[in-house]
Amino acid sequence: MLVETGVSGAELRSEASRIAAQVEAVFSGYLVGTGDGRDRLFEAMRHAGLGGGKRLRPLLTVATGRLFGLAEDRIVRAGAAIEAIHVYSLIHDDLPCMDDDDLRRGKPTVHRAFDESTAVLAGDCFHDLAFEIIADPATHEDPFVRAELVLEMARASGPRGMAGGQMLDLVAEGQALDIGSITRLQQLKTGALIEFAVEAACIMGRLPPEARTPYRGYAHDIGLAFQIADDLLDHAGDEATAGKRLRKDERAGKATFVSLLGEDRARRQCAMLVSQAIEHLHDHGTEADLLRAVAQYVEERDR
Amino acid sequence: MLVETGVSGAELRSEASRIAAQVEAVFSGYLVGTGDGRDRLFEAMRHAGLGGGKRLRPLLTVATGRLFGLAEDRIVRAGAAIEAIHVYSLIHDDLPCMDDDDLRRGKPTVHRAFDESTAVLAGDCFHDLAFEIIADPATHEDPFVRAELVLEMARASGPRGMAGGQMLDLVAEGQALDIGSITRLQQLKTGALIEFAVEAACIMGRLPPEARTPYRGYAHDIGLAFQIADDLLDHAGDEATAGKRLRKDERAGKATFVSLLGEDRARRQCAMLVSQAIEHLHDHGTEADLLRAVAQYVEERDR
Repeated sequence: MLVETGVSGAELRSEASRIAAQVEAVFSGYLVGTGDGRDRLFEAMRHAGLGGGKRLRPLLTVATGRLFGLAEDRIVRAGAAIEAIHVYSLIHDDLPCMDDDDLRRGKPTVHRAFDESTAVLAGDCFHDLAFEIIADPATHEDPFVRAELVLEMARASGPRGMAGGQMLDLVAEGQALDIGSITRLQQLKTGALIEFAVEAACIMGRLPPEARTPYRGYAHDIGLAFQIADDLLDHAGDEATAGKRLRKDERAGKATFVSLLGEDRARRQCAMLVSQAIEHLHDHGTEADLLRAVAQYVEERDR
Repeated sequence: MLVETGVSGAELRSEASRIAAQVEAVFSGYLVGTGDGRDRLFEAMRHAGLGGGKRLRPLLTVATGRLFGLAEDRIVRAGAAIEAIHVYSLIHDDLPCMDDDDLRRGKPTVHRAFDESTAVLAGDCFHDLAFEIIADPATHEDPFVRAELVLEMARASGPRGMAGGQMLDLVAEGQALDIGSITRLQQLKTGALIEFAVEAACIMGRLPPEARTPYRGYAHDIGLAFQIADDLLDHAGDEATAGKRLRKDERAGKATFVSLLGEDRARRQCAMLVSQAIEHLHDHGTEADLLRAVAQYVEERDR
């Protein structure tokens, strides 16, 4: 489906790379070595955190911040903090005891390029880095806002959010999940952090909770659409373009949206969610164009 | 050596268990299951976080808070957050790819009682929990204080603090460390978080940085004394009392304060540091008695 968003695909790609570069600049500032044995740790963190990734979460934070006229250098820092949580989770999820992946963002995973113990530590350090970035006065002038961002990020990341979703995924191995269970699992595993990426901008824009409803709706729909698109990509995509191993779930007999719905219905469901996400933004004019374009990208992405 | 501290050994033990119980009560409040597959994660977190441990860090935070008349229910929450960082680090340090330990606090380690992937996640979730506890308004009424606590805790825990020390420890394997290198390593690996346990109370007491010098001196000395005592315990202690495997460093040929200084000099160095730590408190009267008693306990502990 096509909605006129006012931001072309080329413009979106250009905005996305500009924001990705700013996120990497934030990371780089924190990842300067110490000239001792810890340099191996900083090197592993740079390997994991620089030079790759879609940076969807910071893009969502910046695009939502645009609705409220937030200064980009500040909102980018919040986006970078959320991306740091995402990077930490990828490093740990790739570990041999978890998904045992050897390829991520077109490069060897951290435990393959370094070793397992360095990967555990590098993940732990990105986890700290996320909180160090978001709690810094440079992210928001109001300490009340910073403390709320910390609290909500910890909740989105922890056992009732992303990590809880990963646990559900681990215990689901070998079980026949239905569509409700897989939706719930994915809402936690990937949805919680995507929802926080949008929520963070609402917090920084000082929106009272009751005014956040449309943006939560957008984030909820986008989170689910993103995961369905991920399953479609896993099913039909190209490993070289994706930069990671594909069809692992299929080989392991794990339930996905594609295995449960079939490719056609999954594609239609994804398109419906994207259109529904854009609908949540109907009160906005051109200032929401980037957010609308991001929604469309989720449906059309090839990596 | 013996200093009259005004708090007897029995009184210290009673205070320590009272504070430990409060810390566990804070943890328990967060570790209620969700009635789905995530319950395994909550169970692993309860296994790691409840029913054991010296709780030295919260004890230090509460004892320092007493100098500034801080409300105990609030300062205990900051202590619990720091203990959550400690618990997360123990779970990950015990992993097969790290120290590969099977016993901790007298119980099987998390990856032995559950499995490796659950242990990685349980550690990650204690890491989040630390930030969730400390950023909560219940910990301090002033959001500026909460944001500063978050920032400093992330720094104490990350690559320039505790995790950096663990990295130094990993790269030091098989290398002949001198006393300067081992001191630096331990100042990061265990010292950084012990120093933050004291600093957190200073932040909550709104001490300007220049007024924190004596408490930083105390924390620095105690941190080092604690590690020397740990090496002494590892060398001469009893596994059943300690609740963990001992003499692993010795068998692996790793340098410790005891292997470098010998038992007698290590014992004298520990006593000197404890006496020096207490000296930093000379401007204080009886309100510092608990902090003085904690210093003495560090020297005399048997687990």
